Amino acid sequence: MTVQTTSAAPPSSAPAATATAPDDALSTALAEVERRIAAVLTAERDRWAAVDPRCAALVEAVTTLSLAGGKLLRPRFCLLGYLAAGGDPECPKAVDAAVALELLHSFALLRDDVLDDAPTRRGTVTAHERHIGDHTERGLRGEARRYGEGIANLAADLAHIYADRFTRGLEDEARAVWDELRIEVTFGQYLDIAVAAEGVADPELSRWIAVCKSGRYTIHRPLQLGAALAGRTDLADVFEGYGLPLGEAFQFRDDMIDAFGTSADTGKPAGLDFAQFKMSYLLSLGVRRDDRIRALAAHPAGPEQADRMRELLVETGVAEDVEQRIAQLVEDARKALADAPLVDNWRTRLTELTTSVAYRDR
Amino acid sequence: MTVQTTSAAPPSSAPAATATAPDDALSTALAEVERRIAAVLTAERDRWAAVDPRCAALVEAVTTLSLAGGKLLRPRFCLLGYLAAGGDPECPKAVDAAVALELLHSFALLRDDVLDDAPTRRGTVTAHERHIGDHTERGLRGEARRYGEGIANLAADLAHIYADRFTRGLEDEARAVWDELRIEVTFGQYLDIAVAAEGVADPELSRWIAVCKSGRYTIHRPLQLGAALAGRTDLADVFEGYGLPLGEAFQFRDDMIDAFGTSADTGKPAGLDFAQFKMSYLLSLGVRRDDRIRALAAHPAGPEQADRMRELLVETGVAEDVEQRIAQLVEDARKALADAPLVDNWRTRLTELTTSVAYRDR
Repeated sequence: MTVQTTSAAPPSSAPAATATAPDDALSTALAEVERRIAAVLTAERDRWAAVDPRCAALVEAVTTLSLAGGKLLRPRFCLLGYLAAGGDPECPKAVDAAVALELLHSFALLRDDVLDDAPTRRGTVTAHERHIGDHTERGLRGEARRYGEGIANLAADLAHIYADRFTRGLEDEARAVWDELRIEVTFGQYLDIAVAAEGVADPELSRWIAVCKSGRYTIHRPLQLGAALAGRTDLADVFEGYGLPLGEAFQFRDDMIDAFGTSADTGKPAGLDFAQFKMSYLLSLGVRRDDRIRALAAHPAGPEQADRMRELLVETGVAEDVEQRIAQLVEDARKALADAPLVDNWRTRLTELTTSVAYRDR
Repeated sequence: MTVQTTSAAPPSSAPAATATAPDDALSTALAEVERRIAAVLTAERDRWAAVDPRCAALVEAVTTLSLAGGKLLRPRFCLLGYLAAGGDPECPKAVDAAVALELLHSFALLRDDVLDDAPTRRGTVTAHERHIGDHTERGLRGEARRYGEGIANLAADLAHIYADRFTRGLEDEARAVWDELRIEVTFGQYLDIAVAAEGVADPELSRWIAVCKSGRYTIHRPLQLGAALAGRTDLADVFEGYGLPLGEAFQFRDDMIDAFGTSADTGKPAGLDFAQFKMSYLLSLGVRRDDRIRALAAHPAGPEQADRMRELLVETGVAEDVEQRIAQLVEDARKALADAPLVDNWRTRLTELTTSVAYRDR
């Protein structure tokens, strides 16, 4: 699975009258999320380095990724869910949950980069690649790959546990959302590699995986978690109605960026889905429609094949169909908010966010 | 790290007058732990198989290991800590925590078997090996190793999350123990592979890793968690004084079993530490003492070298020194309980348990 690191930029054309105050509360909370992540990782590095200096490297594998400029999309949705549900901006509990979501995302990315053997992430070398290189340079014993992937996988566990520590205060309703989110993303990752290995080209299955790993994990569950923290479990359906289509649009944009973007823009390699036999909605539509695409997808090879695949996805109209599908999904997400019992300023903000999530370029 | 699956058999010579009633309460609770693990894994398999039949395999990777006859050592210590602290045997919260510990152990074993590339565990093929074989047999796309190890690692995550779900009701004191236990075992696993890769032969460091990954993870923290559930945080020091030496003895026995045991007895391969450059206390003492052992440890090869290693560990007196150290540690653990404010029947049970933990044969 290619878990997302990218997120929306703030909309450039937000109406000043409605957006100024809310944006301030959100920005303040997001800055606090980043501060707490840095603080807990520094404290843990220091505590464990005092036990044995080697331990610092394990925490640093989490830190390098967590502080590499992710856009805090899941914390953003959690805080927006909380504020749109009328939660008190001064209360710290939504910030704790937002920290948990972002550290959990570090866990998912560290694991995912091993699953996909990704060389770069957020513009820097991935943890397993770095430690494989370190093993080779230092002439260590055993197999470099097992060592590097092992360290990255343990760093992922550490990020998961630190994330979970921030949920200590959650009440049952919110905790249930947190647990379900973690289970869903794990099955999403599993299906992603299982379906890739089988080479199944089933657009409906690809859609379902997109819902699981992006719709729920990135948008719906963080919003629902925020709403639960504000005592508004009645908003679960509203945020599902918004989060699932927008998450699907988010994942389809991701597939388009993977296929047509460049590494310089995204901070991660382009064409990785293709190289890893990942059956994104884009690719599975293509395989269904055109025999030349099917033949290429069965044996991905070098950059020449990737160029040819891009040409064919455009020529056959598959890329355009995905664009139209994204536009429809954005429309669906916006409609779900229209009459919902939300704080107006924050409803506006969530509505605007659909555009930057679905039409981002990295 | 070679995380333990084995545990103590019930003592055969427990005095009937003190042991009958307590053993019943413990046996009842342990049976309930097993029943709940089977129930949650069945429910989750059914729930996710309905989403997509492929999902069943991920849950089954957890089930196969969790129900393969582990001896429930961590649940046992958690329940004993709770009962010895005077906890109400009728209250279900200690059982929930015990379930969490056993599922967490499935997580640790699944992860560990990938880290160590172990072929068997609890007498059956490990999850990553099984899925590597499945990939090859079915002629799936991509690399069999990445696929098999990926599935085992995701199954580990799933076990971790299911474990954590059973801690929902924990109060802050108990939850803090749970979080610290998870962090410690992760650093224990990390140091184990870091030290193996460096080939460091430092008996003190090996001892510290044993404390971290067995003393705390297997004995001290489960006992402390049980005591916290009974509202007896005053027992933290007593259980540390008992758990750390006994855990060290447990790990040293494990090292001896790895070196001198047979796969038929243990359900996992013999000599894996040696093959994986693991610097157990046993091996690091040997490397310090004898140049022939040092030379062998630097380049582990086939069964002939393993036989020679065993001879040398005996001939140089290293194995005997480890036996004496185990005896001293058992003595230390027993002393820590002698005057502690515990329920007498359960103090006796914990005292007796030292023998079966330190002198088990698998």
